[in-house]
Amino acid sequence: MLHGGRTVTMTFKITVLGTGSARPTIERHHSAHALNVHEQFYLIDCGEGTQTRLIECGINPLKLNAAFITHLHGDHVYGLLPLISSMGLMGRRTPFHVYAPSPMDEVMKNHYKYFDTNLPFEVVYHEIDTTKHTMVYENSVMEVWSIPLRHRLPTSGYLFREKTPALNVRKEAIEKYKLGIAQITAAKRGEDIFDADGQLLARNEELTYMPYSPRSYAYCSDTLYSARAAGLVKGVNILYHEATFGEDNKAMAKDTGHSTALQAAKAAVKAKADKLLIGHFSSRYKDVSVLVEEAQAIFPATEAAEELHTYEIPANRTLQ
Amino acid sequence: MLHGGRTVTMTFKITVLGTGSARPTIERHHSAHALNVHEQFYLIDCGEGTQTRLIECGINPLKLNAAFITHLHGDHVYGLLPLISSMGLMGRRTPFHVYAPSPMDEVMKNHYKYFDTNLPFEVVYHEIDTTKHTMVYENSVMEVWSIPLRHRLPTSGYLFREKTPALNVRKEAIEKYKLGIAQITAAKRGEDIFDADGQLLARNEELTYMPYSPRSYAYCSDTLYSARAAGLVKGVNILYHEATFGEDNKAMAKDTGHSTALQAAKAAVKAKADKLLIGHFSSRYKDVSVLVEEAQAIFPATEAAEELHTYEIPANRTLQ
Repeated sequence: MLHGGRTVTMTFKITVLGTGSARPTIERHHSAHALNVHEQFYLIDCGEGTQTRLIECGINPLKLNAAFITHLHGDHVYGLLPLISSMGLMGRRTPFHVYAPSPMDEVMKNHYKYFDTNLPFEVVYHEIDTTKHTMVYENSVMEVWSIPLRHRLPTSGYLFREKTPALNVRKEAIEKYKLGIAQITAAKRGEDIFDADGQLLARNEELTYMPYSPRSYAYCSDTLYSARAAGLVKGVNILYHEATFGEDNKAMAKDTGHSTALQAAKAAVKAKADKLLIGHFSSRYKDVSVLVEEAQAIFPATEAAEELHTYEIPANRTLQ
Repeated sequence: MLHGGRTVTMTFKITVLGTGSARPTIERHHSAHALNVHEQFYLIDCGEGTQTRLIECGINPLKLNAAFITHLHGDHVYGLLPLISSMGLMGRRTPFHVYAPSPMDEVMKNHYKYFDTNLPFEVVYHEIDTTKHTMVYENSVMEVWSIPLRHRLPTSGYLFREKTPALNVRKEAIEKYKLGIAQITAAKRGEDIFDADGQLLARNEELTYMPYSPRSYAYCSDTLYSARAAGLVKGVNILYHEATFGEDNKAMAKDTGHSTALQAAKAAVKAKADKLLIGHFSSRYKDVSVLVEEAQAIFPATEAAEELHTYEIPANRTLQ
């Protein structure tokens, strides 16, 4: 899309890098998702070997701005320090931001006593309060919010939400009403346009359109079913929710702080999500279709997250 | 082979799990070799993702007795703590031994403050003095010796050497000379056999054979060319020697504490090795045949180590 003379891509897509739980298999790797919002890249969780999978799906690690870590279990974080190490070897100079619950700061401090002591870029740590739903990151087009989850240790999910974009003024309207710069600016602000006599020339709805409706993605793993978390991501386009087990292992799910596929679906129903992606599958499920079917019984728009698959949320132009 | 009523396998083989250097690529993973000596399993170095590659080549991590770590650069060790973590999840109960230079003990202590705090088995650390050539491990069939290497930080290679096996007594000789148990035992000790009158019945060479000639494998990575190290592995069957660069990048090899392929070959010549395997290739060499050819110019029995390939040293029965 051409916008103000430069190409603006309004990408919003998620690439799933790992769908396994604690015990890796040949088919399933540890947790990590890569998020591309308007060609800015973010990592969510970073299990062992994530850097290799980034290469496999063509995402240059140097493009990553930040990593959002949910909790300090190895299968969600063991790939982070190796990835940072490789970015150093690749000559990264720009700071890299790590959002994670405490004591990730101590883990990193200890690590850098022994490894990568001359990293050529800054790693900036941002502590996540896992008890609060707050905005933890913001840029011109997106906000990231923490989502308190219920796991065996402090855990935060993340909600990635596009901001409401500025209104665009229709070319036809500019020509039809011969709008001047002041009027165009007013229309962009959402105002109606009046002529010199103060008569209404056109209502804002006729003059402008929203280039896209804000999209959102929520990552909820690892967690027991949480009505609060589901409520916090109301209306989300894609909800990624862990479904480590099925109802056949409901007691084990509860004991280990995980959800069943049915509980993931319950969260999607409560959140009124457009789509549910389930993942973080226990290695006991060679075929996860049983989990998908379990979830689909109450939330039909459920899919099993597939490794190296990209899920795009298209810019919705229906308002134009 | 049947021996004393039970099956004894005299396997001696090396499976290469990673052939890359610091920067991983899709084709090349970080350093790790798995060694199988008489169905006892050992790991040499453990770069990120080693546990996945063990699964890929059918080696159950629970079978590993020990890991021998050369030095504390991430590409040789970042996979170790995740592997140990997974062994815990798999229900390991037997101790696991880690041989590594200091401060690996501190690295582990710090790690276990935050992760895997309830590991169900003991991890036993053995500090390697990287300045000394000493026996660091021994069991009934094998010894492991440290090899001082020359890298940017304290680094030790490892020499895995089968012990000289007990002599077997030939069935034909037992029948021919009607040997009693005392005579068989004496023959096994390497003695000649005499009759009741003290007359020589048979020389030991006629009565016995060595079931195999002791085999050996040396792992030298990362290192500059070291005449001392080459001398310490004299007569080795397979020498694995790093060849991060070719002579085209000789200065860079020197600056970074690495060898060229020619220098690896020089070490194999000095060691009078049967075979040289080169690896730890810089990602700049998409095709490593240039490195193999460079080495073959002075040491023809050179091969590029291939990932997930197993190199077996057969039991040599020529003495039978």
